[in-house]
Amino acid sequence: MTAPAAKSRPRVVVVGGGFAGLNAVKALKRSPVDVILIDRRNFHLFQPLLYQVATGGLSPANIAAPLRWIFSRQQNCEVMLAEVVGFDLDLKRVHTTQGDVPYDYLIVAAGSRHSYFGRDDWAQFAPGLKTIEDATDIRRRVYSAFEQAETESDPAVRRALLNFAIVGGGPTGVELAGALAEIARHSLKHDFRQIDPAEASITLVEAGNRVLGSFPEDLSKKALATLHNLGVHVRTGTMVTAIDQNGIEMKSTLGAEHWPTKTVLWAAGVKASPLGKALASACTAAIDRAGRLIVEKDFSLAGRPDVFVLGDMSSYSHQGGKPLPGVAQPAIQEGRFVAKLITARLRGKQDPTFHYKDLGNLATIGRSAAVADIKGVHFSGFLAWWLWLLVHLMHIANFRNRLLVLTQWAWNYCTHDRSARLITGDVPSDDDLAALQNLAIPTKPAITPAPTK
Amino acid sequence: MTAPAAKSRPRVVVVGGGFAGLNAVKALKRSPVDVILIDRRNFHLFQPLLYQVATGGLSPANIAAPLRWIFSRQQNCEVMLAEVVGFDLDLKRVHTTQGDVPYDYLIVAAGSRHSYFGRDDWAQFAPGLKTIEDATDIRRRVYSAFEQAETESDPAVRRALLNFAIVGGGPTGVELAGALAEIARHSLKHDFRQIDPAEASITLVEAGNRVLGSFPEDLSKKALATLHNLGVHVRTGTMVTAIDQNGIEMKSTLGAEHWPTKTVLWAAGVKASPLGKALASACTAAIDRAGRLIVEKDFSLAGRPDVFVLGDMSSYSHQGGKPLPGVAQPAIQEGRFVAKLITARLRGKQDPTFHYKDLGNLATIGRSAAVADIKGVHFSGFLAWWLWLLVHLMHIANFRNRLLVLTQWAWNYCTHDRSARLITGDVPSDDDLAALQNLAIPTKPAITPAPTK
Repeated sequence: MTAPAAKSRPRVVVVGGGFAGLNAVKALKRSPVDVILIDRRNFHLFQPLLYQVATGGLSPANIAAPLRWIFSRQQNCEVMLAEVVGFDLDLKRVHTTQGDVPYDYLIVAAGSRHSYFGRDDWAQFAPGLKTIEDATDIRRRVYSAFEQAETESDPAVRRALLNFAIVGGGPTGVELAGALAEIARHSLKHDFRQIDPAEASITLVEAGNRVLGSFPEDLSKKALATLHNLGVHVRTGTMVTAIDQNGIEMKSTLGAEHWPTKTVLWAAGVKASPLGKALASACTAAIDRAGRLIVEKDFSLAGRPDVFVLGDMSSYSHQGGKPLPGVAQPAIQEGRFVAKLITARLRGKQDPTFHYKDLGNLATIGRSAAVADIKGVHFSGFLAWWLWLLVHLMHIANFRNRLLVLTQWAWNYCTHDRSARLITGDVPSDDDLAALQNLAIPTKPAITPAPTK
Repeated sequence: MTAPAAKSRPRVVVVGGGFAGLNAVKALKRSPVDVILIDRRNFHLFQPLLYQVATGGLSPANIAAPLRWIFSRQQNCEVMLAEVVGFDLDLKRVHTTQGDVPYDYLIVAAGSRHSYFGRDDWAQFAPGLKTIEDATDIRRRVYSAFEQAETESDPAVRRALLNFAIVGGGPTGVELAGALAEIARHSLKHDFRQIDPAEASITLVEAGNRVLGSFPEDLSKKALATLHNLGVHVRTGTMVTAIDQNGIEMKSTLGAEHWPTKTVLWAAGVKASPLGKALASACTAAIDRAGRLIVEKDFSLAGRPDVFVLGDMSSYSHQGGKPLPGVAQPAIQEGRFVAKLITARLRGKQDPTFHYKDLGNLATIGRSAAVADIKGVHFSGFLAWWLWLLVHLMHIANFRNRLLVLTQWAWNYCTHDRSARLITGDVPSDDDLAALQNLAIPTKPAITPAPTK
């Protein structure tokens, strides 16, 4: 916008304002650099609580913090709202929809999307959960299913409307299943007159032989028992072979099976942002099957010591052999590490070494239940659930949101209420309405609801 | 859905869960009737605070309460999520997308939409504020304008991006103008590096000769002075003659003028729901220019004593000559009155008479300022603002939301923050992204942002 100015300090360009990018920028606060943070959204999203937006417990803004607000007082950081479309690593430029941005150091942390393992046609029937829009879409589908069941006269269709399937038994799948069970059994208890929401049936399908496969086995068993208590049908060792508007096909050693349902949620697989491919094609870096870039010990790309790839987009196997998991903790630590590395280089100091500190693993399963694995100590139930609440509350980026989330959790806990259960985004326009009026015939036969109970 | 049951009690069908419908259903709680409340949304919306969602101060769910939740314990009420498409007043049936619903008494209170006075082509450039989706759309436009200004290199375009126009000087227009001024001067103060948000220019255009035309003249003057202090340009006696993507054309006694702006908000006119026309065509009732049905002294339609039209859809001139204003108070009182009337008739008692109690008029203008006209007592400034806060807080349908709104108001007041300022709903999909990558050329010339201030 302004004329190219005399370049005073090295510029670090950070692509993506998730956990990795956010923490890299923060940690560069006192470094002798200018930082440009590029994101296509104007907010940082606290993804671990996204499932609570999808199930109507929290509002989108409660788990999002405007990036400009976060960095308003960090004078060496400039936020740019733009879509990155490619890289020129030789000329050291990032191509964006707002023009080219030159860099001295580049940090790419654009996260992941859900992956349908080559079956992208399933996306329309089985939405995944990565963005605010995904969450409000799932919220709409879940609550609309109960609404449609209330007025549906065909018992088979009504049954399918009250059946829910979740594909993927990782933390997100387990959390969604627990929340759906809560909704059906408690939140909607007194709300309907023709259906009993408690008749809803929730199936969790997992291809592996246990849920929460990244947790120790005893905690998987605890989680399974909790899910059973909540009335969730868990199918481990079961592959989904087809999904359409009428339900899902599953296959296990017991044979094939069809589960009629109108609502399928996808929590099964992720793949790196398409920017991974764009980066790989701009250099010689290798990508793995999930589209993640294989990075060096300092998270740089092979032969590109000034380009770093972090978080869900990178595959880092230099510690313990297994790649670091795609969750918040590694991303946060990676962001901070690379900031430290860049600062050390600029100050002529020795490169630091990355050591991943595994702070533990937490997953919640509905109300008052969770499993925790903290440095080898396993626990579950109410205590784990309190720990889960505390850790998540502490990590929300913004004090205001911490307050709002706490208020709503306390309220939801005491009342079973989920008042953020708005069905939004699919309202017919007045034009649609006019068209319907011109038809002037009911689209379904007349109904006469029974007298209220 | 269930087989037609023996009809036990007269059925009241209420169309619309706004202030009128909601209060009618509530007041029918102890009446010997079955109530079916039909709405196309699953929530009641507290419209007086919708402008705060549009300006990023509150989240949508904070001002919405699920209808089923509101009536979960009212055993004689059934909520039906459906779109009403027409009426057969002779057969006493409501046509809906979910089938026909027979009634004994019908209450229609489907509210209003914004009206462009025959210039519907303006809608795309100047969104109105009636629904949650309108509010998040306006929020996206307002905050995107600042974002685009930040990276815009053409000074004229940047100027137009920082210009905002609000058409209509009623309470909504004044509230929007005040909130926009707040955003530009305070909320975004430290957020940008290339632009100064305080350079934003806000113009409020009103065709009448004063703002807040429904208030006493001295309060209009107070409001005008407050708007001036906030830096809002107020153009009274000015007609808008054209709106397009480059700005608005205005005409006053001083001549014609073009105001270049990329963001126009419409707060000028409303018209009744298209269901008004559908009702009128089903009987012989007259409608006025705004599409409102002329109703009898008891809010029934001429010759249809069992059909009542309430709130923004009706024109009631039997008290004081002027039709009752299209705000919450008359709607609430009308709903309660008609419930009482139906109950009286069923119990063989004499019809009650409607007396509108004017509880006063309130409007807020930005931070710490408001005007109030309470039974002829006029006041303004801080005291009126406190009254405004109190009255609105008290009327929110749900204790949880009261708590959340209060928390956020307190926070926003102390920090000038507006953290619900998410830009949502316009994210390019991965397919779009892939297309952009295939182009592999920047869509704008390279930019080199200046070093940060």
